[in-house]
Amino acid sequence: MRLRAVFFDLDQTLFPAEQAYRRGLRSAWRALREREPVGWERFQSLYARARQRVKARLKSSPSARSRLLYFKQLVEDLSGRPRPALVLAMMRAYDRAWPAADLGASRRVAAALAGSYTLGILTNLVCDTQLRKMLRLDPDGRLFRVLITSEELGVEKPQRAMFREACRRAGCRPGEALMVGDDWEHDVLGSLRAGLRAVWLRPPGSPERRLPAGAARIDHLSELPAVLGGAP
Amino acid sequence: MRLRAVFFDLDQTLFPAEQAYRRGLRSAWRALREREPVGWERFQSLYARARQRVKARLKSSPSARSRLLYFKQLVEDLSGRPRPALVLAMMRAYDRAWPAADLGASRRVAAALAGSYTLGILTNLVCDTQLRKMLRLDPDGRLFRVLITSEELGVEKPQRAMFREACRRAGCRPGEALMVGDDWEHDVLGSLRAGLRAVWLRPPGSPERRLPAGAARIDHLSELPAVLGGAP
Repeated sequence: MRLRAVFFDLDQTLFPAEQAYRRGLRSAWRALREREPVGWERFQSLYARARQRVKARLKSSPSARSRLLYFKQLVEDLSGRPRPALVLAMMRAYDRAWPAADLGASRRVAAALAGSYTLGILTNLVCDTQLRKMLRLDPDGRLFRVLITSEELGVEKPQRAMFREACRRAGCRPGEALMVGDDWEHDVLGSLRAGLRAVWLRPPGSPERRLPAGAARIDHLSELPAVLGGAP
Repeated sequence: MRLRAVFFDLDQTLFPAEQAYRRGLRSAWRALREREPVGWERFQSLYARARQRVKARLKSSPSARSRLLYFKQLVEDLSGRPRPALVLAMMRAYDRAWPAADLGASRRVAAALAGSYTLGILTNLVCDTQLRKMLRLDPDGRLFRVLITSEELGVEKPQRAMFREACRRAGCRPGEALMVGDDWEHDVLGSLRAGLRAVWLRPPGSPERRLPAGAARIDHLSELPAVLGGAP
């Protein structure tokens, strides 16, 4: 079947989120340190604990990934009371710091494919954060015509509904779509189970895997056009 | 049993949210109109439809109340594609416009009670929005020592877990706490079922109701200290 739509995971696929978030976290810490004498090591352990508590409470809800909730929990753990001004100041510092990222390769690949395929983004995170990333990658939706965050759909990858909704919005059948992502379970197995094809963007240093039918592997995003060019 | 904690609903109890949101909505519309020729009447109907679609999809998830999701849906309905820059511009305009509100009475009541009781806020909404309101009402958590949004707890009023968690954080038993709110089902019946007492802040013009045991009624927040003063 002819390929009509190509969907991408956002974090660690098109957007180098881990580096970006590390920058954001240091910036949030600096905002906290203006009011409380907390060193970087201690901040990191407070943050890890707050994150863990929020995740344990919210399980697979998209809000379990909300940095704002982590900061609120951290501040409450530290101060024994809510401090809205401090939490929002940390969040502002975080949001100002992280969006800097080199997106040249991602933009080039998207531009190369946008003429031939409907492009989309399928991502498990809160809408606000992902829109801020898209602001840098494709602010007016000229390249990516579909953008679905798990928060707005109420389901996450690898659930089938996420991929099926993307196909519905792209106006194609699952067999006419392909998902590109770094997460084996979410992006590769999830999309294959929903009837799409998949390209696994292997994270640096991760072990090799046996590819199921319908799946291909690349090591760099820049290899994607060649892989698609060779697809039937 | 002696009363030790008083919890408040936020919207329409301490914060005149409806007026505030109307201001925010007009501001979001102006941000849209800078790029798209959409009149106010049409905007309102697009917004209502987008809101309804998000709510239908997300049901009782806290994100079902997210204005950002409404704006994203509205823009996609209007343009047929995601436009991250426009959605975020609308959200910024909205967030800048709505916080203006007269909080004098709310602050006075809270200040009058904070010496005698542990005060808290129990609200069904996303954390970001409610922190922005608290930024105006009590930015450093000096009056309200407990602040729980449904987003961070993963459950909503009238569920018992919401009230029980508030008591846990306030360090009191349910019988030692009282909930004040305008919503009969969420605030009054929910808190009574969880073993708290309740004060119903009757919304202007709403019909009289028979008060269950453990509940009282006021028409203005300023009546609260007198009602509590008379409590055993």
